[in-house]
Formats: sequence, structure tokens, C-alpha cells
Amino acid sequence: MKKFINAVDQVENQMILGMVKAYPNHLRKLDCGNVVVRAAKKEGKVALISGGGSGHEPAHGGFVGEGMLDAAVAGAVFTSPTPDQILEGIKAIATDKGVLMVIKNYTGDVMNFEMAAEMAEMEGITVKQVVTNDDVAVDGSLYTVGRRGVAGTIFVHKIAGALAETGADLDAVWAVAQKVIDNVRTMGAAIAPCTVPAAGKPGFELNEDEMEVGIGIHGEPGTHKESMRPADEVADLLLDKILADIDYSGSEVAVMINGSGATPLMELFIINNHVADVLAEKGIKVYRTLVGEYMTSIEMQGFSISLLKLDEEMKALLGAKADAPAWKE
Amino acid sequence: MKKFINAVDQVENQMILGMVKAYPNHLRKLDCGNVVVRAAKKEGKVALISGGGSGHEPAHGGFVGEGMLDAAVAGAVFTSPTPDQILEGIKAIATDKGVLMVIKNYTGDVMNFEMAAEMAEMEGITVKQVVTNDDVAVDGSLYTVGRRGVAGTIFVHKIAGALAETGADLDAVWAVAQKVIDNVRTMGAAIAPCTVPAAGKPGFELNEDEMEVGIGIHGEPGTHKESMRPADEVADLLLDKILADIDYSGSEVAVMINGSGATPLMELFIINNHVADVLAEKGIKVYRTLVGEYMTSIEMQGFSISLLKLDEEMKALLGAKADAPAWKE
Repeated sequence: MKKFINAVDQVENQMILGMVKAYPNHLRKLDCGNVVVRAAKKEGKVALISGGGSGHEPAHGGFVGEGMLDAAVAGAVFTSPTPDQILEGIKAIATDKGVLMVIKNYTGDVMNFEMAAEMAEMEGITVKQVVTNDDVAVDGSLYTVGRRGVAGTIFVHKIAGALAETGADLDAVWAVAQKVIDNVRTMGAAIAPCTVPAAGKPGFELNEDEMEVGIGIHGEPGTHKESMRPADEVADLLLDKILADIDYSGSEVAVMINGSGATPLMELFIINNHVADVLAEKGIKVYRTLVGEYMTSIEMQGFSISLLKLDEEMKALLGAKADAPAWKE
Repeated sequence: MKKFINAVDQVENQMILGMVKAYPNHLRKLDCGNVVVRAAKKEGKVALISGGGSGHEPAHGGFVGEGMLDAAVAGAVFTSPTPDQILEGIKAIATDKGVLMVIKNYTGDVMNFEMAAEMAEMEGITVKQVVTNDDVAVDGSLYTVGRRGVAGTIFVHKIAGALAETGADLDAVWAVAQKVIDNVRTMGAAIAPCTVPAAGKPGFELNEDEMEVGIGIHGEPGTHKESMRPADEVADLLLDKILADIDYSGSEVAVMINGSGATPLMELFIINNHVADVLAEKGIKVYRTLVGEYMTSIEMQGFSISLLKLDEEMKALLGAKADAPAWKE
């Protein structure tokens, strides 16, 4: 395993410290563990918290900032944060407007966030939650009951975060977060695995002519292997599953071409070139496109396509001011 | 070679199309070739043009926008754009305030940009140029007389671009661009090579316990191989060369931890954690930190550190409004 790290047991801590040192005007790290909060707490708004295992950078710390999250909790790589850690995050950001937890659907994350919420409620903090489940590749997996929450989660951070910033109440912020979840779908593929530092070896093996289709974001194999093919055909494969899942016809969408960590922008733009053409042919209007790394799997070579079906409220909130390290608007 | 591409001879074209389709409000592609200009031309300002071979994304097309570049010319991967192509870019953006070319110091780039400038001058367009040469690793290479222009170039785009946006004249914009060049230094290392699509195989080979030190940005090997070591020691190795080159003591700096394409943010933040500590110990104040992919080498696994010694003018321009796909301020 060749990585620019110092010690396997220092990866998460040194990463979070390095992130906070890069963005001191945006981020502050709690003393109690790998929890990142806004440098300046804002009262009078619903506080948003998200998180999960590390290894998805810039998610989620990079999305802490004005118009997005108030806190991000980082567990060990691909490992749920502990309830105690999440509770510290909730307590640090809680306001009298309450707290919304944005949880990606993985059994461990859901369990630990819910446990933290119960503890917070006992301390008088009002907590609601949404669970993202945008991955159309699988209906369940080793790690999940139901669909997995993947890159589409970032749209929840952005849109619910923008509404929270206006001072909207917890029910309204919860409702728009849930609306995003109801309207976003994602699917991914990979041509090379990633290596979890503590494991020291890649999560799967692929021959030179193979790819994994239906990958999650925790380094696990996809739903199946297929023969490698031209980028446009890979994009079609993913798009077809997404477009079959909800009716996007005649609607406006936000598109995210998300890199898994080691896929160059060159390839993500080539994919977007085709995705844009296919959507245009189908009469689906692209309102906004995001190309880059939003929800990674360390250095996996892969990508996902997300489509969010928009309405006027979501369009306005997607374009509202944001000032987080990884999303400025 | 496994990549998400369609055909080797379509890589650059489809990439540029995919970029322009992602950011239609920012970018427009000229009909004549892979030249990207601002969607809306702005008169009354010095027009900035940069470019070079493809494979450095988001450079340079991602930096076209308000407060940064007016045009970016993209050659084939790691190959200089042609004089004709550059001339088309110059003609598309030229104003009565003149044009500033920001050229990275590579023999082919310098030659072709200068040839284009001569042709433009014959058509009555005033053109000046700066040549970036921030790489302290080598004083010359196979491809260059003098030091290579690498990631520090992006600071020139930002700072000279910000001054140009105010309507400053060509001499002033040239002078601040040259001031950035005089004050920025960069050095990089890599643990895995990249594959130029047309070549089909990696640019160098490394054993599991080796790294390349002093890499450029064209997939070539570095100045020498060394044994792989912990991230902090690699960062020290690069920082020592940078800090020995100009006197940063007591000054304020901008830091760029630039990923080469396949290095996860996790590792870049771990590197920044140490760089921030070392600079603090040395009494060098970090005014601003940038961590991410700015000047890549397709999917090389590596990074570079850049330090820009700032004065009040550069600080103000670094923080001035920008609205390009890859830099919003």
C-alpha cells in the first residue's frame, strides 16, 4: 500500500486537522473527536448535521459552511461515527429551532445517528432526521436494508441547508430534505478499487478488461462485473437504470457527475458530454451540472451519475448563496 | 489502458465539449478548435489567455470566468496548442486594452504562443506575455530551458485576472502577473504515473517502495527516485527546496496543496496538516490555503506544494471576486 500518510491510526485525525487548518475561517474542530463545525455558530436557524465514515472527502466536512451544514461527524474510514461523537456534534450546533440529521442509508450510520438523537432528546434538544437512499443499483446490500445513500446526499446538504439558512422551521427544512431524497437517483461504476488504510489491500480485484457496475461508496465491489466498454456506453448503462426509476420526462434536472477519487476530470467531462446529449434528446432540461469530486471512495477509479428532478423551490435553493470549502455559490 | 474514454483521438474534443456543456453560463467553445472563452465577452479590460496541452484539468478551461481568464487554449494531451489555435483565442477575446498571455515555461508552449502573438500584432492587437517558471525541482529539462511552469501558474490567473477585471492597463496587469511569478515556488512528488491516452502505457514505472521526486506535469519521471517515506517527510523534502529558494521569513503566504489527479483529498489534507505546522514553526504566516486539484497530470498519483509570498496588493487580488467553474471567490 503506497499512500501519502504517516500512520494508519492517524489518518482520520491528521486529515481533519489538515482540513481545519486549510479553512480556519470556515471550520472548527471539536476537542472531543473528529467533529467539524462552522467556525462561527449561527443561532436562529435549524442546525444541520451529517457525517459517516471517513474516506468520502470532501464529504462531509467540506460542506460545512453558510447555506449548507452546521456540523460533520467523521468516523474511521468507511466506519460509522459513534453515537457519543454524533451527540457532541449535535450539542455543539443545536439551536432553539432544532437539529436535522442527514443520514446516508447504511445500517451502522442509521443506528448510531438515531441513538445520538435519543440521547440529545433526553437533554432537551429537538432532533429530526432524513435518510438518503439514492442508489438505484441495489435494493439492499451487506451493509444496508433498502437502497444505499450515496452522492445524491450532497443535494440534500445544499438544498435543505439553504432553506435552514433562511430561518425556516424544522418541519419545513425536514420536508424539503425529504423532497430532495424523493427526487434524486444515483448509480456508479468503477474500473479500479480503493485501499482502506487499515486493511492495506484493495477491496476487490478487476482484470484489465473488466469494470464493476453498481458500486457503493465503501470500497465494496458493485452488483456485478461487466466487460469494459467505451465511456458513452457505461454512462448509458447507468443512466438507463436511473431514468427507469422515476419519471423525469419533461422535467428540469440537476446533474452530478461525481468522481470517486482517482478519476481525472478529463474523463468526468467526457462522460458529461454524453449525459448532456442523452438528456437533451429525451427532452429533459438540464438546469445545473456539477462535475467533480463530491462523494469519493478514497482513491477509487470510478464515477457516479446523479439526477435530481427539480421544482421551483429546489431550483431557487440550489442556487442560493453558499460558502463552504467545497461548495461556493 | 483502462479509462472512461470513447476513442483516443476524441479525448480532447469530447472533454472540452463536456466542460462547456457543464458550464454554459460561464463558457463557450470556439468553432475553430479546442479554445474556450467566456460565454459573454467583456470589453474595456485587458484580456487574459492561457493554455497548453490538455491533461491538466481543471487547468486551464476551469479558470475562464469573471476575475480570471478570458480564454484557454487546449492542445492535445501534454502537447502545445498550435499557433493558429492560440491566434483564434486571442482574436476572440482581444479588446482595445490589449491581451496578456500567461504561458507555462515549456519550449513548445513558449514558441507557439509567441508565434501567435506575432500574428496577432500584425492584425493590430497589442499582446504582452509572462512565462511562469515556479518549479524549483529542475533548472532545465528535456522539454524546457530554465525552470518549468507548474501549479503556481494558477495564482497568476487569479491575481492578474482580478486586476484586469478592474480595467487596469496592460502594463499594470503584466507587472502584477510578473510579481506573482517572482514570488511563487512549487515542487512535487508522485507515487504512481499517469497514462497518456495516445501512448497507452504509463510514463514511468515505480516499485512499491519508491516515489518520484521533482515531478513535472507532463507525466514524465521526476528528477530522481527515492524510497517511499511518511507523508510528513515527503512534504519536508519538497518544502525545504522551496524555502531555500527565496526568503519567506516573516512573510505572509498563500499555500497550494495541489493534487495531480488521482491523489485523494484525504492525503492532501494530511500533507496540509504538516505544511501548516512547519510554516507556523518558521514564523511564516499562512494567509490563504488551497487544497485540491488545480493543475493535474491526468490520473497521476502525486501532489505539489506551492508557496506564494504575498504583499498587500496580491492579498487583495487573491481575495477579489471570481466566478470561474474551478474558482469561485
